[in-house]
Amino acid sequence: MTNSPKPSLDHLRDQIDSIDKQVVELLAQRRHVVQQVIEVKAQHDLPTFHPAREENLISARRAQASEVGLDPDYVEDLFRTVMRHSRVGQLHTLGRRGVRPGAKVLIVGGLGNMGRFLAGWFRQSDYDVRILDRDDWPQVRSLTAGLDLCLLAVPIASTPAVAAQIAPHLPPACVLADITSLKLKPLEAMLQGHGGPVVGLHPLFGPATTTMDKQIVVVSPGRQMEQCQWLLDQLSLWGNVLVETPPAEHDEIMGIVQALRHFATFTFGQFLHSRGVPIARTLELSSPIYRLELAMVGRLFAQDPALYAEIVFATPERIALLKDYIQSLQQNLSLVERGDKAEFVSRFREVAEWFGPFSEQAMRESTFLVEKLVHRF
Amino acid sequence: MTNSPKPSLDHLRDQIDSIDKQVVELLAQRRHVVQQVIEVKAQHDLPTFHPAREENLISARRAQASEVGLDPDYVEDLFRTVMRHSRVGQLHTLGRRGVRPGAKVLIVGGLGNMGRFLAGWFRQSDYDVRILDRDDWPQVRSLTAGLDLCLLAVPIASTPAVAAQIAPHLPPACVLADITSLKLKPLEAMLQGHGGPVVGLHPLFGPATTTMDKQIVVVSPGRQMEQCQWLLDQLSLWGNVLVETPPAEHDEIMGIVQALRHFATFTFGQFLHSRGVPIARTLELSSPIYRLELAMVGRLFAQDPALYAEIVFATPERIALLKDYIQSLQQNLSLVERGDKAEFVSRFREVAEWFGPFSEQAMRESTFLVEKLVHRF
Repeated sequence: MTNSPKPSLDHLRDQIDSIDKQVVELLAQRRHVVQQVIEVKAQHDLPTFHPAREENLISARRAQASEVGLDPDYVEDLFRTVMRHSRVGQLHTLGRRGVRPGAKVLIVGGLGNMGRFLAGWFRQSDYDVRILDRDDWPQVRSLTAGLDLCLLAVPIASTPAVAAQIAPHLPPACVLADITSLKLKPLEAMLQGHGGPVVGLHPLFGPATTTMDKQIVVVSPGRQMEQCQWLLDQLSLWGNVLVETPPAEHDEIMGIVQALRHFATFTFGQFLHSRGVPIARTLELSSPIYRLELAMVGRLFAQDPALYAEIVFATPERIALLKDYIQSLQQNLSLVERGDKAEFVSRFREVAEWFGPFSEQAMRESTFLVEKLVHRF
Repeated sequence: MTNSPKPSLDHLRDQIDSIDKQVVELLAQRRHVVQQVIEVKAQHDLPTFHPAREENLISARRAQASEVGLDPDYVEDLFRTVMRHSRVGQLHTLGRRGVRPGAKVLIVGGLGNMGRFLAGWFRQSDYDVRILDRDDWPQVRSLTAGLDLCLLAVPIASTPAVAAQIAPHLPPACVLADITSLKLKPLEAMLQGHGGPVVGLHPLFGPATTTMDKQIVVVSPGRQMEQCQWLLDQLSLWGNVLVETPPAEHDEIMGIVQALRHFATFTFGQFLHSRGVPIARTLELSSPIYRLELAMVGRLFAQDPALYAEIVFATPERIALLKDYIQSLQQNLSLVERGDKAEFVSRFREVAEWFGPFSEQAMRESTFLVEKLVHRF
């Protein structure tokens, strides 16, 4: 040991650098082998995902970690990142395949953000994609000739009217589908206007998404679902996870998940603005959890106001829901004004009991994310 | 190429497994070298963090990634995880060192959750730790004899009274500090009761935290801060990040960051309960962003209701704040009831402009986390 720690530290750091370099070399080799896997899968039309294979791989690495004295959670964390990267890479190649390449797809509202986004995906999977936007109605006859799929990507409020307008032009076997975030009324209009296959879709992601990997699409069945199956298969191949839901259940849940949350988040952002709260300073003084909450508020305001207006203003039921929520806040406020901590605690306990094991799970998930946030930003 | 893809796929998967195994072996070697770094640092009293070293390491691996055709962001993501793990490991050893080992520390409220948590940290850094809880006041004289630090870890509402009660017993040079989430009133009471060094602290984390790594502690200066410096140095050595803030600014920001957010989150959880919303089904039908929001609601209910009551009920200013927020919701509701989408969009744009570049940053941060969430759960 020398007097100064510098030489020995430098030497140890060189060793670390050399190890890290080898790790990156191995990752490059890995990618090369994964590339070959992709080719075999493509030749034999095999799916990208292989959940059992992924879990086996994780288990083997966890076991090895324990043997060599590493934290298995740490090693799992690393390999989940490696596998996600590999999966996205595979989707990039395999997910481009068309289930019915050459089929004629018309995107109504194809110049909007989601319309353009979906047109891109269909095109790269070799579909014959046409666009019908506001000014294209004079060409509706040629655009719908021999059509296999008509996909409505127009604002929520217009979907029923557009469905009624396009339906008479569709060939009887053409699939009619929409992607609005409401399902009862659009499905009703599509079923009424078109006698052939009908399916309601609600993709739970926006046009800024770069991968469909594990992104959820809600599927509300309409009619002749066997004829719609190729469309659903195409979404799965792109990486989407499909969740079948009756339209009434969908609309009720989305009232809370979308309308109420967006409304409350919008108002909170506006409130920060009206009080001139210094955001940057607030972030310095924030626990990671609040930083996360604030990121979700800021995120809203980076997006399209018209879309949020559509979602919040969609139905009278949604307005009633907002009213009820504000009333709950009022009731809790009078509790605070009365200084009734005991009642607050008792109401809190009641809700905690109702959430049950979900609270613990939520704690685990959010703690995991908070740690990611802390070490990344 | 055989007819069946099985043999070639199996062969390729064996190759992947062998590569992954080598990666874990390298990580184990890395840990061994890091262990030696820790020993050198401990011998020479060097700090755990070396931000420049970390950034150099990341840059080198990003450059190598580009050379070998890997995505540099992907490789950075992996090595950030590796480094965090290494840092936490180092803190585990180095962070235990005491800045003033043997100094006498009294934790008032030392049987509460945070009191017990902090007592543990001081003890493992070789301080002479004493506890004063509700029943220990008869022993106050012996507990405060020769005391170097008196730390108040009692509920918000009791802090001023407890400060007044303990202050007369403290030696003049003893540091008096508190950890409540309000700073104006506790500081006032501490300064009034004790003529020696005083500092207000607010740790932005709970007793469930397993590492202090990068956890924020707000520091509101009181009096004779040079005499308090060893305490702040100790927090830094444990891994905390200290943010100095005048008490008035602290209390104003925390009104929004803590009281208002907790109140709104509590009411939202209660609202889900009152409507019997099926949580599990909602999660299946949720975009990752909503899943994250719901995790943050569930997380609240896994924690101590009394603590939340303390925070929400703390001051008349906080009650006024809640009232104002509910009024903003009411005003936006009447907008929705009038069907005035144009006004909604215009208000939205105004806030978006105010948020400015933060929105984009928020979008980036939350998208990063959402991808973590998607591939982990």
